[in-house]
Amino acid sequence: MERPVRILGTGKYLPKRQVTAEQLDQKLGLPAGWVEKKSGVRVRHFVTDETSTQMGAAAATQALQNAGLTFADIDCLVCASGTAQQEIPCTAALLQEELGESDSGVPCFDINSTCLSFVTALDVMSAAMAAGVYKRVLIVSTEISSVGLNWEQKESSILFGDGAAAAVIGLAPDGSSSRILCSRMETYSKGAHYSEIRGGGTLIHPSEYGKGNESDFMFDMDGRKLFRMTSQLLEGFIERLLSNTTISLSEIKAVVPHQASGMAMRIMAQKLGLAPGQMINIIENHGNVIAASIPMALHEAIQEKKVARGDLLLLLGTSAGLSLGGVLLEY
Amino acid sequence: MERPVRILGTGKYLPKRQVTAEQLDQKLGLPAGWVEKKSGVRVRHFVTDETSTQMGAAAATQALQNAGLTFADIDCLVCASGTAQQEIPCTAALLQEELGESDSGVPCFDINSTCLSFVTALDVMSAAMAAGVYKRVLIVSTEISSVGLNWEQKESSILFGDGAAAAVIGLAPDGSSSRILCSRMETYSKGAHYSEIRGGGTLIHPSEYGKGNESDFMFDMDGRKLFRMTSQLLEGFIERLLSNTTISLSEIKAVVPHQASGMAMRIMAQKLGLAPGQMINIIENHGNVIAASIPMALHEAIQEKKVARGDLLLLLGTSAGLSLGGVLLEY
Repeated sequence: MERPVRILGTGKYLPKRQVTAEQLDQKLGLPAGWVEKKSGVRVRHFVTDETSTQMGAAAATQALQNAGLTFADIDCLVCASGTAQQEIPCTAALLQEELGESDSGVPCFDINSTCLSFVTALDVMSAAMAAGVYKRVLIVSTEISSVGLNWEQKESSILFGDGAAAAVIGLAPDGSSSRILCSRMETYSKGAHYSEIRGGGTLIHPSEYGKGNESDFMFDMDGRKLFRMTSQLLEGFIERLLSNTTISLSEIKAVVPHQASGMAMRIMAQKLGLAPGQMINIIENHGNVIAASIPMALHEAIQEKKVARGDLLLLLGTSAGLSLGGVLLEY
Repeated sequence: MERPVRILGTGKYLPKRQVTAEQLDQKLGLPAGWVEKKSGVRVRHFVTDETSTQMGAAAATQALQNAGLTFADIDCLVCASGTAQQEIPCTAALLQEELGESDSGVPCFDINSTCLSFVTALDVMSAAMAAGVYKRVLIVSTEISSVGLNWEQKESSILFGDGAAAAVIGLAPDGSSSRILCSRMETYSKGAHYSEIRGGGTLIHPSEYGKGNESDFMFDMDGRKLFRMTSQLLEGFIERLLSNTTISLSEIKAVVPHQASGMAMRIMAQKLGLAPGQMINIIENHGNVIAASIPMALHEAIQEKKVARGDLLLLLGTSAGLSLGGVLLEY
């Protein structure tokens, strides 16, 4: 299950507009300090005129630069997001267009497991690379959560931000020990309706909008049930994830988690017995950016030199579905 | 690039309600015979009370039966559709729930390249299997096109049907020569807007529906431009697809194409110089079922004994994006 794949470069983009916890306290008529305390988010960014593909293209361009590559070096473009720019075609094709590469022929498709999309794409595409199908893959997660939030659900709406992150992955060069050591994903759909947007697909088509069902087109989360279920599953999942390796959590330089919420990450660090600083936490000034959260946290950790080549990293998250997913890699 | 993977079983589901070409002639105020002549579709099926996951679960159950397996034998469930049941979570998780396997933990995610989604999923997941990540994968394509058709665009709306198809793929048993010989995908986003649904995502959110933009939430196709572009690209694509093999088209028992339209398939057969009967054509009584078209045609060909173990098959299609994709396999 090991795959000789290296993360060659990462990038991110945040929308220009910042929205602070104080602004949301006021907007929602809440006591000062409530939003930051509940969410752990001091500042998130919301799009004004930015589109999903514009953000994704900016993050992708930075990832290519950081890898010392250009788009011509890429042989596959995967969009790994929980939200799409439009129904048809897939967002990856629109990203190719936004990057000015519309004649390139580089294959484009989307992989979606909501907040785990990047982890799933890294897992699956690294395997495709190990099997010889692709050599260098650009994975882009770009999310606009702000259009689908239900501000009457205070505890969920205050968590999210917009933004994009990208990574270029390639076969590890000779002599490099960069690799994916193991990966695992588990889905328990008994939790499928604990976090969802019921509308927008073929079940409640957009043409049904505005008949008193407006909330069906907004994010709906039962935080308590979600939290209880993921808490019960997490430890067993980690055990199964690492079971084919000899690695213990204490040997891992950094755990790069989905930035679900401040509290979710505190409890995760506690449950896993992580050392202070072992978990990469960027929620304070990014919020939960759906699938972009994990690659964005990875990008920040690399930029801030919290991780270096040779370090073991665990990308780890939960998502709507309900799914748990993780990839253990040597950076 | 060869992968020792076998299609173990296939299944399909068609909605109960049949809609004939004559009914559409009348509905659209067209002369008798116009719809069938233009589309090549005599009967398509539209959902009444069926959901996308109900159809997909029925097709999946049949595919498992035909493979002589149960869900317990599966270690990954991929939904490979151009349409989704709801915005969040991914349709694969909802399929797991519909199959009554919500405690199974089997990982679920979606792969989307519109009409090529099944081909992309087969390509990528067979590679993941070759790399040792999964052993048996259930791929389900389930599509409800009927909710998003624009009946004022007569030439596109008359092509489509609803339905689902599924395939179980597994590592080829010892001594079997079943395998994927090669695969290829190319995306040219200069054609990204020749077939699209602009609305429904983050660009034109469902909450914008009903402000004179209704057609943004329906399928929009420029058939002429699409047709010209794919015609120009097809022959070169096939050459590149087969270039790493010694196989010529005449050695391939059956080409299983995307059932885009009667005319598109006639021209494809002509351009590729296929022998009569070499192309599997089920459009007459299914219509274009988006990503379900290719696995449904494959299922029909197997059921009607047009293909047998040991035969070379070419799954081949075009999709919104604009993309071309193909997988050559020994069945």
